[in-house]
Amino acid sequence: MPQSQATEGPVETRLRVRYAETDQMGMVYYANYLVWMEIGRTDFCIQAGFRYRELEEADGCAIVVSEATCRYRSPARYDDEILVRTRLARLRRRALDFTYDILNATTLESLAEGRTSHIVVGLASSRPRALPDPYYRILRPWAPAPA
Amino acid sequence: MPQSQATEGPVETRLRVRYAETDQMGMVYYANYLVWMEIGRTDFCIQAGFRYRELEEADGCAIVVSEATCRYRSPARYDDEILVRTRLARLRRRALDFTYDILNATTLESLAEGRTSHIVVGLASSRPRALPDPYYRILRPWAPAPA
Amino acid sequence: MPQSQATEGPVETRLRVRYAETDQMGMVYYANYLVWMEIGRTDFCIQAGFRYRELEEADGCAIVVSEATCRYRSPARYDDEILVRTRLARLRRRALDFTYDILNATTLESLAEGRTSHIVVGLASSRPRALPDPYYRILRPWAPAPA
Amino acid sequence: MPQSQATEGPVETRLRVRYAETDQMGMVYYANYLVWMEIGRTDFCIQAGFRYRELEEADGCAIVVSEATCRYRSPARYDDEILVRTRLARLRRRALDFTYDILNATTLESLAEGRTSHIVVGLASSRPRALPDPYYRILRPWAPAPA
Repeated sequence: MPQSQATEGPVETRLRVRYAETDQMGMVYYANYLVWMEIGRTDFCIQAGFRYRELEEADGCAIVVSEATCRYRSPARYDDEILVRTRLARLRRRALDFTYDILNATTLESLAEGRTSHIVVGLASSRPRALPDPYYRILRPWAPAPA
Repeated sequence: MPQSQATEGPVETRLRVRYAETDQMGMVYYANYLVWMEIGRTDFCIQAGFRYRELEEADGCAIVVSEATCRYRSPARYDDEILVRTRLARLRRRALDFTYDILNATTLESLAEGRTSHIVVGLASSRPRALPDPYYRILRPWAPAPA
Repeated sequence: MPQSQATEGPVETRLRVRYAETDQMGMVYYANYLVWMEIGRTDFCIQAGFRYRELEEADGCAIVVSEATCRYRSPARYDDEILVRTRLARLRRRALDFTYDILNATTLESLAEGRTSHIVVGLASSRPRALPDPYYRILRPWAPAPA
Repeated sequence: MPQSQATEGPVETRLRVRYAETDQMGMVYYANYLVWMEIGRTDFCIQAGFRYRELEEADGCAIVVSEATCRYRSPARYDDEILVRTRLARLRRRALDFTYDILNATTLESLAEGRTSHIVVGLASSRPRALPDPYYRILRPWAPAPA
């Protein structure tokens, strides 16, 4: 049985390629796509209804990356407008996954696709913990329903 | 029948975590592990017998990343000595893969594991091409034999 | 006799602090302010009427940095909205200077002030040359008149 | 009367230009020189006899940048060996300045010169304080004598 779709999302982020992000190939350096994914996550949280910063500051809780993957399809170049579409692909109490479509915002050509896996940890202890319930409930409609 | 081991490798790179590489979690920001993998690849080429820079400058050829993955096991921190062990995991005429073990050089604790897939392109055309034969022969002993 | 004011400017750029831009002090790492200045320059050119990218691609001309200075007044933090006000402080045929006020966009507190000096070079030769005349005329109203 | 020379220094750091540090001009992006200065400072402290990390961790004290300047003379390129010569140019109880000569380590050509000014702050309070006395005494022979 297929997973049901999330009722909300994806969240769209627009950014323009910085000169600093290019390398001598004249393209965006490959590690910078992971920075764009992080910006996508920040915007995802805002759109869902909280700021990631509050989670760290008020709840002493961090969502750390346990795995990241990126497939590079076509190069991004300086001054290109980029569109990042971020989805919450999986939500558990202690773990969550995001996926990203990274497009040229003008041509809608696919530039890259990414996925990041995360675990929730206490900031002080660095130990796994559950996401505080209010955040979990906020995120719930953005995730596909469990099979 | 299992693949035969590469007769050469891995190549070891040591580096020290820069303050610039940390983030407000007090750990190395996750995209920077991909920078370390690139340093591992540069050193791999030197150890194998050529400079990657020559490949670009003299042969008009680039090895671009088509996919990158990193699993994060334990955080690296400012001033830590890091050991990157780079292996050539797969070698074809037009494509190659590297794998990386990223360790704390002092404790030998595993911090992360990565893999990058690459294709060979002409610098002017940006189109796929075969790796020039001398480089292919240099890299051959560093790759596992095809099954 | 004081210099007359520029008739145009400053150009305002808004950006939000990326997690990647922080360091373990919990503040933006100091080198990243220079990246923001570069974004300010890119927006400055757009506002003035051309894209910096065209200058490189169509005219084979680059504006390279010969000196950069930044005074840090108050730290910027993750997720802060930042306002960069960029001015063309000096314009010669072969050299130009920009100044930057970097503010917290919410409180308008001054975070940093910067200045960059640039020379114009040919992309192929890397040698100093004059800015092509159309660009010079576009930039003229944005610079203070010479004394 | 000229200042007396420091009895110790400069401290030399060697590094190799990372692909990540280049931009589409084929040179090192200008903000990255400030990262190299930070590496120079880290090595300076080690050579003087302490690790900067201890100062933060054990003494709750940070040396933050209040101003940074860099003059760019000649471009650094991917894979170049770089030599950073770091000097303590000024030492007060609550403030200190470093200067940097950044050279091509092979040709000894001067690539850039920099200066950073710093103040000492408490990590918890973010307020100015005096450098703990043991560190001050360690650094004393590395600074020019006051006039």
